[in-house]
Amino acid sequence: NSLGPLPRATAQRLRRTVEQEWGQGLIRSWNEADWIGAPARLGAKIARLIGAKAHEVIAADSTSVNLYKLAAAAAGLRPERSVILTEPGNFPTDLYILQGLAAQSGHKLRVRTVPREALIDALDETVAALVLTHVHYKTGAVHDMAALTARAHQAGALAVWDLSHSTGALPVDLNGAGADFAVGCGYKYLNGGPGAPAFLYVAERWADQATSPLAGWMGHAAPFEFVDDYHPAAGVLRMLCGTPSILAMAALEAGLETFDGVDMAAVRRKSIALGEGFIALLEAHLPGVFALASPRDPACRGSQVSLAHPQGYAIMSALIETGVIGDFRAPDILRFGFAPLYTRFIDVFDAVEHLKAVMADRRFEHPRYAEREAVT
Amino acid sequence: NSLGPLPRATAQRLRRTVEQEWGQGLIRSWNEADWIGAPARLGAKIARLIGAKAHEVIAADSTSVNLYKLAAAAAGLRPERSVILTEPGNFPTDLYILQGLAAQSGHKLRVRTVPREALIDALDETVAALVLTHVHYKTGAVHDMAALTARAHQAGALAVWDLSHSTGALPVDLNGAGADFAVGCGYKYLNGGPGAPAFLYVAERWADQATSPLAGWMGHAAPFEFVDDYHPAAGVLRMLCGTPSILAMAALEAGLETFDGVDMAAVRRKSIALGEGFIALLEAHLPGVFALASPRDPACRGSQVSLAHPQGYAIMSALIETGVIGDFRAPDILRFGFAPLYTRFIDVFDAVEHLKAVMADRRFEHPRYAEREAVT
Repeated sequence: NSLGPLPRATAQRLRRTVEQEWGQGLIRSWNEADWIGAPARLGAKIARLIGAKAHEVIAADSTSVNLYKLAAAAAGLRPERSVILTEPGNFPTDLYILQGLAAQSGHKLRVRTVPREALIDALDETVAALVLTHVHYKTGAVHDMAALTARAHQAGALAVWDLSHSTGALPVDLNGAGADFAVGCGYKYLNGGPGAPAFLYVAERWADQATSPLAGWMGHAAPFEFVDDYHPAAGVLRMLCGTPSILAMAALEAGLETFDGVDMAAVRRKSIALGEGFIALLEAHLPGVFALASPRDPACRGSQVSLAHPQGYAIMSALIETGVIGDFRAPDILRFGFAPLYTRFIDVFDAVEHLKAVMADRRFEHPRYAEREAVT
Repeated sequence: NSLGPLPRATAQRLRRTVEQEWGQGLIRSWNEADWIGAPARLGAKIARLIGAKAHEVIAADSTSVNLYKLAAAAAGLRPERSVILTEPGNFPTDLYILQGLAAQSGHKLRVRTVPREALIDALDETVAALVLTHVHYKTGAVHDMAALTARAHQAGALAVWDLSHSTGALPVDLNGAGADFAVGCGYKYLNGGPGAPAFLYVAERWADQATSPLAGWMGHAAPFEFVDDYHPAAGVLRMLCGTPSILAMAALEAGLETFDGVDMAAVRRKSIALGEGFIALLEAHLPGVFALASPRDPACRGSQVSLAHPQGYAIMSALIETGVIGDFRAPDILRFGFAPLYTRFIDVFDAVEHLKAVMADRRFEHPRYAEREAVT
């Protein structure tokens, strides 16, 4: 669920980047292989998947670092307001980053969390920014991005969206929703490899006003003039910070190329069919064993189905041993991600067969499945 | 100068990480290939090169991002003080990051730059942190880390060192100097590849008090518990932020392995011999053509020799075409870096021969060398 597989083209692409561009081209490849243009070039490829203009997106840093930049930028555009609004149970790093930003502001900013059903009412004149994850990492529940963004704007707040669990699995329309800022990860549905560079989006209307607290040289208007004073670059490039890993960028670019020519509406149709098929098979073969922890309505569900079970960790551990790699999220959630580009219907069928076997012989009760390990 | 070459082992190592660990191991490799341990594992290898304890260093993010974390952490430990002291002409991203941090503090913090000869006198009771680059990127001039750190401590300030132009080329003794914090890059003398992950050091005595404003999940005490509130990890691991690129980490690890068993004192001796040889050849063959922009005393010079010439850009462009890859830094500096692990004396001799040829036929005056391109 949280790491896409290795695309066929990636190994070849990395060999080229390592052996030719680095090994032979050396420093010249910053220009000759356009390493320097990688953040914007990859950003343009991502833009198509999230309903953004090519010049509104860059690939850079990690999701966490990018969220810090953009939450700070959003708060900076509403200096008279003090609240960053989000929901409890949001992806932890999002909450932590906002807490870190609030502490760094000397608690001029504060993070307010309210349950998702109360978000609309909490959008008042104190809120500088609404920061939410589009598809919930644990349940797969989808926020109504357009409605929440519109309501945030009515309240005079800005909307910052984390697309880590959406991008590449369901259509996103940032421009259509009027979103102000967004971030997302490159290693899940974008197949960019473990810890791939993340991305960020700045709506065109903010690009020359938003400022990044992480004012590194790559976001400078003239990084190679080596002047002493920071002057932000025009547009979204000002959100760059330090030198990006070119090897990581090359792998992400190969991952993004798996989306060339792909229609995201077709991706969504297949995603829903995979999820519905999985639920139907569970209901038929394992009725009452798991509680559905995702919305039953596929229109409200991302490209995952989450199940709750008190022995979820042990069950997932035993299932992974059969070759079905879902993941576990505390305290009791088994996550099954469906990556429409490569997950087949037969894979869903096989997954349920293996799950049936794990439950039938109760092998998950063996003590060796009880030990918790770090799994991302 | 600013990108180490491809080590022999790196391509093989990356193939293993990509094709086996990612391609076959998938998410399991976070544990089975110890991806999760990469920041600390690489940090321990770097620690030996910079006079630090293994548990004081991690590989993470970029130099710029790491400097933001540590300058903020240092200022946070001196909340009653408002000045971050540095020098004009410090590496630009260091200045920009400090300016960004000051702006983000609502200008509670301010950046004061004073020329290096006036730093000692400027260390007063207003200074929270002294932030300097150990070896100057442009001139190669070396700061007396121990003396400046001691003086900072006398004034009640903390000392933050950027080791980007030192690490792997000359011995550094952070513990011996009593340094509080340090950062450095992985792509120069450490041979980690273009945009390799950077590193950071937190002195043991601060590790459980310093807090990172970039409070991402990888720095959490229990990142896989997915709780809503941030609790920093024990020790230097709290300075981690988002998920690191494992491909970039693998390449950096292979680069670091080129230092296995290497004696940094021997590295320094060769570095000095290379630099002295270069200067002697220039004085013999191109007398009066270039001004020496580095200290003449090798004890005060890092592993580079910088020359000044009004047509520096065109001369370096023409020289690069001969295969001698130095770099240019505005307005008039030609930088020649000597990486003791692989730069040979014959390379220095050849470089001067090529430089003689470029100057003899004045080919650098051809208009095609006049155009400035982005070179990092």
